[in-house]
Amino acid sequence: MRKILLIGIGPGGPNYLTLQAVEALNRATVFFIPDKGDEKAELRLAREQICERFITAPGYRFVTIDIPKREAQPQDYRATVDDWHAQIADRFQQAMIDQLPDGGCGAFLVWGDPSLYDSTIRILDRLRARGIAIDYEIVPGITAVQALTARHGIALNGIGEPVTVTTGRKLAAAGRWFGETTVVMLDGEETFARIDAAGAEIFWAANLGMDDEVLIAGRLPEVAPEIQRVRRQVRAAKGWVMDIYLLRKADGDES
Amino acid sequence: MRKILLIGIGPGGPNYLTLQAVEALNRATVFFIPDKGDEKAELRLAREQICERFITAPGYRFVTIDIPKREAQPQDYRATVDDWHAQIADRFQQAMIDQLPDGGCGAFLVWGDPSLYDSTIRILDRLRARGIAIDYEIVPGITAVQALTARHGIALNGIGEPVTVTTGRKLAAAGRWFGETTVVMLDGEETFARIDAAGAEIFWAANLGMDDEVLIAGRLPEVAPEIQRVRRQVRAAKGWVMDIYLLRKADGDES
Ligand SMILES: C[S@@+](CC[C@H](N)C(=O)[O-])C[C@H]1O[C@@H](n2cnc3c(N)ncnc32)[C@H](O)[C@@H]1O
Ligand SMILES: C[S@@+](CC[C@H](N)C(=O)[O-])C[C@H]1O[C@@H](n2cnc3c(N)ncnc32)[C@H](O)[C@@H]1O
Repeated sequence: MRKILLIGIGPGGPNYLTLQAVEALNRATVFFIPDKGDEKAELRLAREQICERFITAPGYRFVTIDIPKREAQPQDYRATVDDWHAQIADRFQQAMIDQLPDGGCGAFLVWGDPSLYDSTIRILDRLRARGIAIDYEIVPGITAVQALTARHGIALNGIGEPVTVTTGRKLAAAGRWFGETTVVMLDGEETFARIDAAGAEIFWAANLGMDDEVLIAGRLPEVAPEIQRVRRQVRAAKGWVMDIYLLRKADGDES
Repeated sequence: MRKILLIGIGPGGPNYLTLQAVEALNRATVFFIPDKGDEKAELRLAREQICERFITAPGYRFVTIDIPKREAQPQDYRATVDDWHAQIADRFQQAMIDQLPDGGCGAFLVWGDPSLYDSTIRILDRLRARGIAIDYEIVPGITAVQALTARHGIALNGIGEPVTVTTGRKLAAAGRWFGETTVVMLDGEETFARIDAAGAEIFWAANLGMDDEVLIAGRLPEVAPEIQRVRRQVRAAKGWVMDIYLLRKADGDES
């Protein structure tokens, strides 16, 4: 039996770590670092620095797992992701068997919270379905959603009202905003600037918790061009940008 | 100008605290403790213990703010809440002016994350609207949603799929579950046992992070009676229960 900890590290900046996460870091001896080979070397470095800063005992080590690229604009989204996860599972399996002794404790440092738009849990579930003896434990982390609302100083929900968290892809497919409070993640296409969202107010943030964090809020049609401009600027400056936004009714009547 | 920190402390148990929250605790000198006069003395104690354990400098103090009771089954939900918030704002205002010197730093320790189904942000917004010079800062916390998924070892969303977070009241009003992944909070009425939710699987938890934490999962119609039994047991044992659940399609096809 191998033990795997999925440790949520929050959406940027070591101060989002929980005490539970720090304790978990100190239980693992092998840290698996999935490497997508893209430009986000900074995110890899952030994980290594967290280990250096918070692990008190020496002797832990990093194991890189190369992650194959996924088709960017797949015909069949579900099938493509399914196939991609199967390939990643193969790599995880290999890395665990080769690098983690039976009875050992390994960990993944997961951006934000491991339950939100992250595939690590699903991939470990696949390994268990293949009969690999792994036991995993999840340490929750602050999500980008919480960081967004905290930095803007707003509530996530209207009083007694629901909130939906969705993706840029889903919002683009709908083509419009339905008037309920909605948080949009994974939007590489600036969908906010293309949808029908009459009456919406947007609270947007990029690279939360990082040096180049930026926040913009206002009525959607009015601020969309500025968000696009700033978003492109941030991306141009470091090669990538992570952004998230909340849409809600603009009448100030969220109270 | 008075500074107020809204510090998310997570949904139970001091280990959910973030490093940022610990740092924030050490910046405040007055801790406001809203007291609803109900049986949750344990939750009040939890806040005081957090301060005792993590604040290194002496000289901080607690200020209790008595919170009036809200009508349990209001005719007009919005109007009742609005009126109740105005009353709470009066009490907050009084407490801050009397107990926090100008230029001082006070804090509220907010259960879970301050942005999620919590009124502290809205009440401070009211004070600002009244012209009271307060500046507030939000420190995000782990929500009960994150604790729920972590303890059940599940993802919050299906691959690329949205998630809705809602209340027992809203679910009861709809009378049914719409087939999308839904997290239900603030359900004192065991709504899960009364709705039309064919094909749903439920992941339920009560008192997450506490000594009497309990988890139940399974197909909704099959496990609903057991959840009701256990929920009543937990509530009978300590006078209250906090529970939360996730509903999703049961075909195992969440991957
Ligand atoms: C693959 S998802 C991972 C989400 C993560 N597990 C969480 O709990 O926040 C990546 C998306 O999260 C959001 N995100 C993550 N970190 C962010 C940050 N520091 N600033 C802004 N958005 C962020 C963006 O919407 C990004 O497209
Ligand atoms: C007033 S809301 C506050 C939510 C909190 N701000 C958060 O971020 O989780 C209270 C609801 O949160 C959920 N909740 C909070 N703490 C919980 C716990 N420890 N176990 C189960 N549910 C909890 C329950 O649904 C409860 O009715």
